[in-house]
Amino acid sequence: MKNFADNLGIAIKQIGNPCIVGIDPRLDLVPNFISSLYNHLSSEDASFSILRDFCYLLLECVSGKVAAVKIQIAFFERHGLAGLKAFDHAVRKAKELGIIVIADVKRSDISNTAEAYAKAFLGNNPGFSGIDCITVNPYFGLDSIEPFVKICKNEGKGIFILVKTSNPGSADIQDLIIGQTGRPLYEHVARMVSQIGSTLIGENGYSSVGAVVGATHPIEAAALRKLLTNNYLLVPGYGTQGASAQDVTACFNSSGEGAIVNASRSIIFPHKNNSISKSAYLSLINDRLSKMISEIKKAINNRT
Amino acid sequence: MKNFADNLGIAIKQIGNPCIVGIDPRLDLVPNFISSLYNHLSSEDASFSILRDFCYLLLECVSGKVAAVKIQIAFFERHGLAGLKAFDHAVRKAKELGIIVIADVKRSDISNTAEAYAKAFLGNNPGFSGIDCITVNPYFGLDSIEPFVKICKNEGKGIFILVKTSNPGSADIQDLIIGQTGRPLYEHVARMVSQIGSTLIGENGYSSVGAVVGATHPIEAAALRKLLTNNYLLVPGYGTQGASAQDVTACFNSSGEGAIVNASRSIIFPHKNNSISKSAYLSLINDRLSKMISEIKKAINNRT
Repeated sequence: MKNFADNLGIAIKQIGNPCIVGIDPRLDLVPNFISSLYNHLSSEDASFSILRDFCYLLLECVSGKVAAVKIQIAFFERHGLAGLKAFDHAVRKAKELGIIVIADVKRSDISNTAEAYAKAFLGNNPGFSGIDCITVNPYFGLDSIEPFVKICKNEGKGIFILVKTSNPGSADIQDLIIGQTGRPLYEHVARMVSQIGSTLIGENGYSSVGAVVGATHPIEAAALRKLLTNNYLLVPGYGTQGASAQDVTACFNSSGEGAIVNASRSIIFPHKNNSISKSAYLSLINDRLSKMISEIKKAINNRT
Repeated sequence: MKNFADNLGIAIKQIGNPCIVGIDPRLDLVPNFISSLYNHLSSEDASFSILRDFCYLLLECVSGKVAAVKIQIAFFERHGLAGLKAFDHAVRKAKELGIIVIADVKRSDISNTAEAYAKAFLGNNPGFSGIDCITVNPYFGLDSIEPFVKICKNEGKGIFILVKTSNPGSADIQDLIIGQTGRPLYEHVARMVSQIGSTLIGENGYSSVGAVVGATHPIEAAALRKLLTNNYLLVPGYGTQGASAQDVTACFNSSGEGAIVNASRSIIFPHKNNSISKSAYLSLINDRLSKMISEIKKAINNRT
């Protein structure tokens, strides 16, 4: 069995860019050409159908253009069981299309509960089928990460552990300076990622345990890039959150590899008005995604 | 509208003890008198029916004996949509029975995504109805907690923020000493809880923003009790995880209030063999719960 890091590395090479698209559906921003189809349904059935169709449209649109999608479960949980049914459909559709699925779930708990989460998303008889990788929160410590790593090893799956998140408030906890080291907490967590990831290195030299590092903090990202020599970085923050293509380059190593850059809102909600036509909407998404890909590739090439 | 802290305080007084039961269902530990009913169903339908019946049985058994239950969503997510349908049923059943529902979901994300989680579990048109309170992870910082607090304020709901968790590995991150303060990270997080909770104090003097503090760390708990003067502590770790009634007392203030103590596995899985009869199973649960309640009440009384 190939490991997740190898699969990701191959997919990025084949597709020719390190960009991924975040599937963060919001019912109030879904264009009318989808939502108007379901006015006759109950609120729950309509939520499911609209979310499903919107995700299918996005996935078909980005298929062949990006190696992976990051599907944010919060925007599905928002709509309860109907939303989670759409999440399940979206994951399976992405799988069908051959797109790597990162489920952005940010789960964590004490070990026996963490094991339940790991089985839910990554197990061999999972609660949700077709997920390649999830995001994990490190606050509980190493023994809470181990159940995820164990299942990654057995099933060829991956995790990205939160290290330095893209939000301004990340400084409140993650930037605190630890004891005599003079180094911030996020570097401490990065060392934990490097350590626990060392047991899961693929043929390409990367671990199936990666780190979430926000592009909105390019100086911190550059330091983390040096610490995390064998780990992929999952990089949010480009686009709506304010990071530029130039900021993102700090997350790549000297050969221009080792990171995937996510954009969600700036790609999937490019329209100002929900009455936009389907062709105009798809054309806008394509433009936004092409622009992101070319900007980021150019910034990486100019740097290396 | 009463706030969550007031509701919790009244319920604890009425019921006469600070114990709560953790609903952490595991299919392999459900007694045969439930699981054998559903052999004829598909795996998904059977999972749903077994989890639902098991939760209903537990909820009916503990109703009138505890003020609240803590329903651990991981053990439902483990079974995907079927599991989450059972979660939804369990929450509504608890509500029907007048039991306060703490959904143990440990969610967190950047602010707009945190808002989606807050709406999902605590909103006025939620994804899952009937939840009074959820657990939240602080790693993202203050701006990730604010959307939860805002919805708590509008809807009379509550959150418990992870401060010092019950697992041994909690030391890896939570015990790190911060800069020149000489104080551990968990105390820093506790100050954040106290600060953000100060906007949501009820008539009883407690905030609807509480803290998760493991009973497995009684020395740390005593320090946190002093810091968190206006906050309820949600205390896991009693029972299977090893904390004694004596350990738990550190989490209560001098008047014997301010905390709720959870036990999950030690109460709901008291049997050695799944072939146990229904009456014997219920009798065991009742014994375990009565013992927990009397042990903890006695320990608190002896101390104060």
